[in-house]
Amino acid sequence: MVDARSLAVIGASGTPGKFGNFFTRSQLKMGYDGALYLVNPKEREIMGLPVYPDLLSLPEPPDLVYVTIPAARSIDILRECARVGVKGVVMIAAGFSESGREGAALEEEAVRIAREGGFRIIGPNCFGIYNPATGLTMLPGHDFSRTPGDTGFISQSGGFGVHLVRQAQSLGISCSSAFSYGNAADVDESDLLEYFAMDDDTRTVAGYIEGVRRGDAFERSLRLAASSKDVVLWKVGRSTSSQRAVTSHTGSLAGSHDIWDGLMRQCGVIQAKGVDQVLDTVLALKHLGRRPGRRLLIAGGGGGLGTYGADVAESLGLDVPAIPECSMAGLRSALARAGAVPGNPLDFGAPLIPLSEFREAMEAAAGLEGYDLMVFDIAANFAFDLAGEEGLKTAMDILVTAKERHSRKMAVVMYTRSFDPGDPSKEAMVGRMRGLLHEKGIPVFPSVERALKAIALINA
Amino acid sequence: MVDARSLAVIGASGTPGKFGNFFTRSQLKMGYDGALYLVNPKEREIMGLPVYPDLLSLPEPPDLVYVTIPAARSIDILRECARVGVKGVVMIAAGFSESGREGAALEEEAVRIAREGGFRIIGPNCFGIYNPATGLTMLPGHDFSRTPGDTGFISQSGGFGVHLVRQAQSLGISCSSAFSYGNAADVDESDLLEYFAMDDDTRTVAGYIEGVRRGDAFERSLRLAASSKDVVLWKVGRSTSSQRAVTSHTGSLAGSHDIWDGLMRQCGVIQAKGVDQVLDTVLALKHLGRRPGRRLLIAGGGGGLGTYGADVAESLGLDVPAIPECSMAGLRSALARAGAVPGNPLDFGAPLIPLSEFREAMEAAAGLEGYDLMVFDIAANFAFDLAGEEGLKTAMDILVTAKERHSRKMAVVMYTRSFDPGDPSKEAMVGRMRGLLHEKGIPVFPSVERALKAIALINA
Repeated sequence: MVDARSLAVIGASGTPGKFGNFFTRSQLKMGYDGALYLVNPKEREIMGLPVYPDLLSLPEPPDLVYVTIPAARSIDILRECARVGVKGVVMIAAGFSESGREGAALEEEAVRIAREGGFRIIGPNCFGIYNPATGLTMLPGHDFSRTPGDTGFISQSGGFGVHLVRQAQSLGISCSSAFSYGNAADVDESDLLEYFAMDDDTRTVAGYIEGVRRGDAFERSLRLAASSKDVVLWKVGRSTSSQRAVTSHTGSLAGSHDIWDGLMRQCGVIQAKGVDQVLDTVLALKHLGRRPGRRLLIAGGGGGLGTYGADVAESLGLDVPAIPECSMAGLRSALARAGAVPGNPLDFGAPLIPLSEFREAMEAAAGLEGYDLMVFDIAANFAFDLAGEEGLKTAMDILVTAKERHSRKMAVVMYTRSFDPGDPSKEAMVGRMRGLLHEKGIPVFPSVERALKAIALINA
Repeated sequence: MVDARSLAVIGASGTPGKFGNFFTRSQLKMGYDGALYLVNPKEREIMGLPVYPDLLSLPEPPDLVYVTIPAARSIDILRECARVGVKGVVMIAAGFSESGREGAALEEEAVRIAREGGFRIIGPNCFGIYNPATGLTMLPGHDFSRTPGDTGFISQSGGFGVHLVRQAQSLGISCSSAFSYGNAADVDESDLLEYFAMDDDTRTVAGYIEGVRRGDAFERSLRLAASSKDVVLWKVGRSTSSQRAVTSHTGSLAGSHDIWDGLMRQCGVIQAKGVDQVLDTVLALKHLGRRPGRRLLIAGGGGGLGTYGADVAESLGLDVPAIPECSMAGLRSALARAGAVPGNPLDFGAPLIPLSEFREAMEAAAGLEGYDLMVFDIAANFAFDLAGEEGLKTAMDILVTAKERHSRKMAVVMYTRSFDPGDPSKEAMVGRMRGLLHEKGIPVFPSVERALKAIALINA
């Protein structure tokens, strides 16, 4: 469905506040490479485009249909879909199996029509599909990028699906596709994992899952996907109240989490929790790969950074080993200044020492033996006060050069909100520095906790 | 020392890159209410101000002296301080007990001079004191607020001290005073806790501590402080590598953390970790008070939010109780729309439903029985797409009205970075919404994890 060459929007509308309006605006703003047909018997023209009264009036049978009208009226539309011979349908509206017996009957009927009509359904109760290559988008992804990437997302929640894509984008992570699949009446998590397992454009799969429909199929698909891709899953429904919510949200059964945990371990799937942690993990995988090693050199311009970093690292099962004395001579001579502590954690002695000194010390640090990965915590607000944006940029260049010369893996901590947020220009500058480092294969995290948690997860 | 009416800066300098320049610029930009004297035998004028060759040449003995010159040369200055009769000295430079035997001897000598000279020392190896009422500031707090508040900060790390104050400010939390106290050669954590215990302007004390000098005195001061204030402490040095770092950072001994944990529990002190968690806790205390109750109503416009929120809440020992059916009628009638799930978690059915409907539902939710605290997760990016800033503002007003009418405690989750960060105007708008809610006693957290962790901590 992601490569549909024509798309019909049932319930397209010029009236703000309706899903059909919201989606049409999003899809038009995104720009769709194929033929886009708007369908609504009550409207003639929307945003300058002609509107067709029904599917049968379209110049061609569309590959894909987004149904944005309420649940009760959508069954007739599905019959029309079967009649004209579409390949796939995305059903946005809620009011199906998640809402009780009546809705469940509607959902069963929808699936029956799809099976007989030879098409697949995504949803209902979902936000749709995002595919940057074709310009297909999910509700309300009007500002999603058109740059294709190698991370595939699946999300049973539409809201989290959009969050994942949007924040991934802000971290320089592009998608192959993203699916919000809601009630999973037809296409479910197993189908989607299988799809991504076979998709050559996808290297990492990340997903939010409330419950699993077909246990055996899921296990098969997951093993298949995890054998060739990195898989990061965020499973909810672990607590009593959450299980209650899962049922009323997408009509799923959350299942036993012991069985779940065992399966994840066996398959080598990374379990993360929350939008931030999922994306931190995807970011870490992108730049550091799977299992880069647990021995960290924790460095920064200040003693507190390393002291606390070491605490957090060890609580997460990471190591902050003492560095073999034989490799320390260069660092000791580069960091003779008062306040500096050449060791692990490594304290440069001030938030930003003079840049020539910083270059020498960073080169020496990158050349040390006995660790796998350097975590450098730059206090961007201090460094900016001392050296301005140019100085900060030079410091970043020094990091990148040291990393490349010594073929080191490196992660950087750069706090957001470390400046007075009354001045958004500073936050924008942090964004530029982050972009510069991401381009050079150095992931940037907004706190030491988040950096280290992600590093622990990719080593699991 | 915080109310010093005159301040001398030893080592004030016009040369960028030196601590004495950095501090002078910060202090001048902040504006100091008392008399400010710059001292440096090699300079005549700095930033338009006259420079004195030494302490003896000043028109009056200064109450407080900031010593910004290197360790070795500072002992002579302390002798001068004793001679002219100052009340307090802040020693910025490192190179004392944290750096080995030679530095330790210097530090002992410094303390001896202070004892004999009748003055106290903050530091060495610290960033100083911030007091908004007088305009005294720490390095490099040039942009700290002049509005006094009721939170006192102590931090053994200068960097974390500045982070805490700056981010507190961004959350609408003002300080009574903040101390970066470094090596604690003379004034230590016990003295500072005792000071805040007796300070009528302080209601909450938050601190970063690496190690404790005087166990008995610390226990006494902590009990005293915790008997009349809320105390939040962040203790590092729990792991082997971190203990190694603590010693080389501020020359402290981290101590046994079992004893520490026991003492904290006995005194009712909240233990938090990391800048973010400390400030989330202070923010929660400010608006929700200590022990507001563990029974949460988790509400939001989307099923995933509540489902995940319930998981996180229960994992933290919070409750998400089913709401007594007898109080549900109003909510059920207000939320008849497809996709909405009146219950706990409470799903409004869409990120922002029409505002009249939202008002009715929020009023009904605030009136429900059986919970202590509502946590409302607003997907600001979706809501903005649907209703713009005006709509978002109206939604906030509806929240505030419902809270006030029903005398409810409420916390809001509003994700930062939920918009494309290429557009800082959106982040600024989130900041405005946050400010509006903080004014009305509703704390705003950047993720559901952080909100719930803070709520769990203030209930501990």
